[in-house]
Amino acid sequence: MTSTNQDLRVGVVGAGQMGADHIQRITRTISGATVSAIVEPDAGRAAAAAAAAPGAQPFASIEDAIDAAALDAVIIATPGPFHEPVLLPALEARLPILCEKPLTPDSASSLRILEREQQLDRPHIQLGFMRRFDDEYRALRELIAGGDAGELLMLRGVHRNPSVPDSYTQSMLITDSVVHEFDVMPWLAGSPIRSVEVKYPRRNGLAPERLREPILVLIELENGVLVDVEMNVSVRFGYQVGTEAVLQTGIARIGQPAGLQRWSDAAFSIAEHTTFKTRFARAYDAQVQAWVDAVRDGSLVAGPNAWDGYLVALACEAGVRALDESGPVPVESAARPAFYA
Amino acid sequence: MTSTNQDLRVGVVGAGQMGADHIQRITRTISGATVSAIVEPDAGRAAAAAAAAPGAQPFASIEDAIDAAALDAVIIATPGPFHEPVLLPALEARLPILCEKPLTPDSASSLRILEREQQLDRPHIQLGFMRRFDDEYRALRELIAGGDAGELLMLRGVHRNPSVPDSYTQSMLITDSVVHEFDVMPWLAGSPIRSVEVKYPRRNGLAPERLREPILVLIELENGVLVDVEMNVSVRFGYQVGTEAVLQTGIARIGQPAGLQRWSDAAFSIAEHTTFKTRFARAYDAQVQAWVDAVRDGSLVAGPNAWDGYLVALACEAGVRALDESGPVPVESAARPAFYA
Amino acid sequence: MTSTNQDLRVGVVGAGQMGADHIQRITRTISGATVSAIVEPDAGRAAAAAAAAPGAQPFASIEDAIDAAALDAVIIATPGPFHEPVLLPALEARLPILCEKPLTPDSASSLRILEREQQLDRPHIQLGFMRRFDDEYRALRELIAGGDAGELLMLRGVHRNPSVPDSYTQSMLITDSVVHEFDVMPWLAGSPIRSVEVKYPRRNGLAPERLREPILVLIELENGVLVDVEMNVSVRFGYQVGTEAVLQTGIARIGQPAGLQRWSDAAFSIAEHTTFKTRFARAYDAQVQAWVDAVRDGSLVAGPNAWDGYLVALACEAGVRALDESGPVPVESAARPAFYA
Amino acid sequence: MTSTNQDLRVGVVGAGQMGADHIQRITRTISGATVSAIVEPDAGRAAAAAAAAPGAQPFASIEDAIDAAALDAVIIATPGPFHEPVLLPALEARLPILCEKPLTPDSASSLRILEREQQLDRPHIQLGFMRRFDDEYRALRELIAGGDAGELLMLRGVHRNPSVPDSYTQSMLITDSVVHEFDVMPWLAGSPIRSVEVKYPRRNGLAPERLREPILVLIELENGVLVDVEMNVSVRFGYQVGTEAVLQTGIARIGQPAGLQRWSDAAFSIAEHTTFKTRFARAYDAQVQAWVDAVRDGSLVAGPNAWDGYLVALACEAGVRALDESGPVPVESAARPAFYA
Repeated sequence: MTSTNQDLRVGVVGAGQMGADHIQRITRTISGATVSAIVEPDAGRAAAAAAAAPGAQPFASIEDAIDAAALDAVIIATPGPFHEPVLLPALEARLPILCEKPLTPDSASSLRILEREQQLDRPHIQLGFMRRFDDEYRALRELIAGGDAGELLMLRGVHRNPSVPDSYTQSMLITDSVVHEFDVMPWLAGSPIRSVEVKYPRRNGLAPERLREPILVLIELENGVLVDVEMNVSVRFGYQVGTEAVLQTGIARIGQPAGLQRWSDAAFSIAEHTTFKTRFARAYDAQVQAWVDAVRDGSLVAGPNAWDGYLVALACEAGVRALDESGPVPVESAARPAFYA
Repeated sequence: MTSTNQDLRVGVVGAGQMGADHIQRITRTISGATVSAIVEPDAGRAAAAAAAAPGAQPFASIEDAIDAAALDAVIIATPGPFHEPVLLPALEARLPILCEKPLTPDSASSLRILEREQQLDRPHIQLGFMRRFDDEYRALRELIAGGDAGELLMLRGVHRNPSVPDSYTQSMLITDSVVHEFDVMPWLAGSPIRSVEVKYPRRNGLAPERLREPILVLIELENGVLVDVEMNVSVRFGYQVGTEAVLQTGIARIGQPAGLQRWSDAAFSIAEHTTFKTRFARAYDAQVQAWVDAVRDGSLVAGPNAWDGYLVALACEAGVRALDESGPVPVESAARPAFYA
Repeated sequence: MTSTNQDLRVGVVGAGQMGADHIQRITRTISGATVSAIVEPDAGRAAAAAAAAPGAQPFASIEDAIDAAALDAVIIATPGPFHEPVLLPALEARLPILCEKPLTPDSASSLRILEREQQLDRPHIQLGFMRRFDDEYRALRELIAGGDAGELLMLRGVHRNPSVPDSYTQSMLITDSVVHEFDVMPWLAGSPIRSVEVKYPRRNGLAPERLREPILVLIELENGVLVDVEMNVSVRFGYQVGTEAVLQTGIARIGQPAGLQRWSDAAFSIAEHTTFKTRFARAYDAQVQAWVDAVRDGSLVAGPNAWDGYLVALACEAGVRALDESGPVPVESAARPAFYA
Repeated sequence: MTSTNQDLRVGVVGAGQMGADHIQRITRTISGATVSAIVEPDAGRAAAAAAAAPGAQPFASIEDAIDAAALDAVIIATPGPFHEPVLLPALEARLPILCEKPLTPDSASSLRILEREQQLDRPHIQLGFMRRFDDEYRALRELIAGGDAGELLMLRGVHRNPSVPDSYTQSMLITDSVVHEFDVMPWLAGSPIRSVEVKYPRRNGLAPERLREPILVLIELENGVLVDVEMNVSVRFGYQVGTEAVLQTGIARIGQPAGLQRWSDAAFSIAEHTTFKTRFARAYDAQVQAWVDAVRDGSLVAGPNAWDGYLVALACEAGVRALDESGPVPVESAARPAFYA
């Protein structure tokens, strides 16, 4: 698709919470795009979503929407296990794709997607790791790359959630939460993951009985940088995602409290986030705007691509094993095809 | 204009720095609007601006653009003295208007605009006091209005600029800079201005010779709240706009440094702004998006209106007098017409 | 008195709250001094104080203590109106004196003290303006004097108290609270006070009925620096003393929250002080240690002297008038004698 | 020794940097104590130290000082390998002892000291782990013990030094630097160390060639709390010691920048420490004052005792092994005698 003054017609697959957010975002916030198709088998959800996007057509399947020529590009917002059956026909139709993380639930299926995508002229899939569009992560990456403080030695992450839903299992500590670090830490450090290890601190008695957490995840990168991530999902007090970069001659920290400052009741305070929705609100907007702009100008991808998704799937597999094994679990990937260079 | 799926066709009058920013903003950032007309007599500027807005038509005057039915709404981004000749035909054409501050350069001309606007069915003019769309100002206003910390007693503002252009005169300390406080402080406090007074601290020897600054501006509001504003335009070190609200049982402060934190060279540091463009980038976006949404849904105005502009013009007149007089200079306004209730 | 290894024998006059603090400080914290005499007519207070200072002798008057040769130096911790009758015999006995602020309650009596002191060989009186011994005030003064950020243009102070006792009157806003600013602001700026003016913000309804506060005090210094002080004594939320220095090319701020940082209940917070005792605990210690050291090494005074006390008395008189008059009230002092150079 | 008004006569053994600091501290800062004896075989050092402490007698050995009845208590400030030959005669003489860390260089010699000390009526040795006297560490311990934020789950420490002297070896990362964490982390958590593990991040190329650092030290406590410590000794930018406590429902952080805040050169900044001497200046003072007070009132020890020193020696031995072994190295101590309960 070449640059025009026409709005990009976006189909959204999946009208659950994430899909509904994207529909509202494209309709009310993003420049140069409209929601033209909503693919959602659940009739109630489909109707609710359509109400927020005047002019969008409902479809029961991605194939129907493609057959009706109802979209120029697609956002996939279904749960991970349902990505592959949408990705394949969308690639078949040569549609640019913004796919919520993960690419697919495992590395084997991710490899299948990579193979299919490589039959096209260039990458068509962008992955929804929105942290890469957060202003502070961007500033941190720029500072590291700039080299003013010397080489990067360590990255130290914390990810703290007030609580998790009933459906959240022990392995989701890795596949649903640490998964973001598996994408963003190599992106900050400019180096892929070599191994993953899990350490268990004292268990939080407020966690659901099925969960043994918090965990401390140790990640070695190929360039020797050591990453640690405190993953903590029952902290109650708020939602917090922070990173500290340890460089040769300096330290940098992001994710610290900001905004209105108050003095009351013998304390100085700043409100902390309680959900990723506010913490990363602007990152989600920036991510989708960048993707829309990239599709309209023909570059198609303006963020992590399917190869990044495959690497993250490998790291998740190692991380899930590391929940039960002591010591580092190695991560070994196939060679990166020139297609994704 | 009722809500539709069609983009709002916006004409931009004036393609200087501010106008060029708005053209780019509407084209690349704002949802639901396109630049359809650019009114700029300077051919070079007009061409440069048009390049950023594919599909926009150039016009030499607002009248021409209106005659060509080339716009649904208008943004006025010319210098203040040129607002009235655009406002009047735009009101005649019943166009919704987003007018950069000030409404007009003095209260007499502002009153003429108010009279003309009241011949329409409802207010059509929104003024570009973008601070009202800044997240922190909004949080502060909400906190004050919430009453949890008791009544508001004082508001304490600082406005510090690294430097000013050669064209900046002594009276512009009031009309170009403090003018923002004349709008936003009453908005925060929920009460209009009663008087304005100026105090002179030691002069900054780095200021241009024609300027006697910094100044301390003392503003009494009708509800007894005392406002002080440190206005300082040759500070070199950065750009800073902050406000502290003194309430009965607490204090709130906005405009403090935030973002990536660094340790280097025996110091902890956070980058400070150096221009209003970054400090208020999101406020400008939010302001224009709110106005576009309001025009599309028929409410037309989603921010300060022409009456607010008239009040600010009165305060500026008092402020300019106060630069040369000792003691408080009273501000007396006409009664607010029901039209602007 | 020349330097020896012997402890300095300090007599403390007044064993109320301030005096009891000093007795405990010298006994338990200060190196090189012991409390040798306690002058307190109230028998209960005297007994309680003596219990904290083993070896101290009780006296009913300063004259008795002097006659008994029971002290090498004296700390005066009675209320201001009772300073003169202690200062005069102590000067007569050539005792080094640490006198709690104020020197005396008015400039006329302060002048009498100055005259008496000048009959000695050098100044013997140090005044208890402890802010000068606070680490942050000292760092601020050094930064200003260093000149790296250019000339000083403004000083902006806030002094906020949770509440005041029943005995606190309207004029004590000046004589008991702003009095500290009258000492420390000229010390920071290196220039004496030219005038004092008071502005009334909206009254705090939580203040005792007899008080009209907060007030904003505007102080002009001889070098043109403008000082403003927000004086606020019913803020409930905590105790806060802060200063911001506005320099030509930079800003400096002291008195901001520090120490343990917490995240809880959707907020990041730092405890704020609730009393001057914790805020200035180290300053009181440092002040008394510096004075003890100065007395032991023969320099006698290591802080503000009686002349500074006289200047503050003048400023207080102007400040009290300014509570009832509009506009600046001038402060005119006698010429500084070489004795106090 | 029972409480009297007499100054405690302290002998200082070792007049190197640490000893000289203590001599000055006792002479000029600490209440109720004087330096009565200086034990230092190096004549030049001894003379320099004596100059700072009028009245102190020089001795070539602790035995000589004891024989001369020249001291009531002793501070040992020699290097660790020279502690035992001072500790034994001092215990023999039943002198209260403040011993700089470590107790002795290994657990075997520490056990010998413990055995000797248990022949006395009660513990006489206090160890110089001064962090326990830092205001922020104390506030953190109180917060943890208070239980308001639930159980402690993790402790996360950073210890960053600008550089190290030529004499600093790889094992000193553990025995000279992490040694402080081995004392203070169990003290914060209320639980001893179970194992120590070392991870190697990317090496800092600015470190001396003989050092492989930074290191990340993982410490398991008996109660399940996981401690990690980033130990980093060539950071150049400053000196920083910080701790973050992860509790069930909240986070607490100490060691963050504080004091005068500046705006200059497009940045907001706060000076960071560059040496432990300023970072822990008040902690050293408070430690020695507490010890002097304890000796004077007969309680003898007011901080970590010899048993704590033995536990730290064990942890250091495990830590040094962990520098070369992968995985956790267990720490196994003898049972705590009732004497140290």
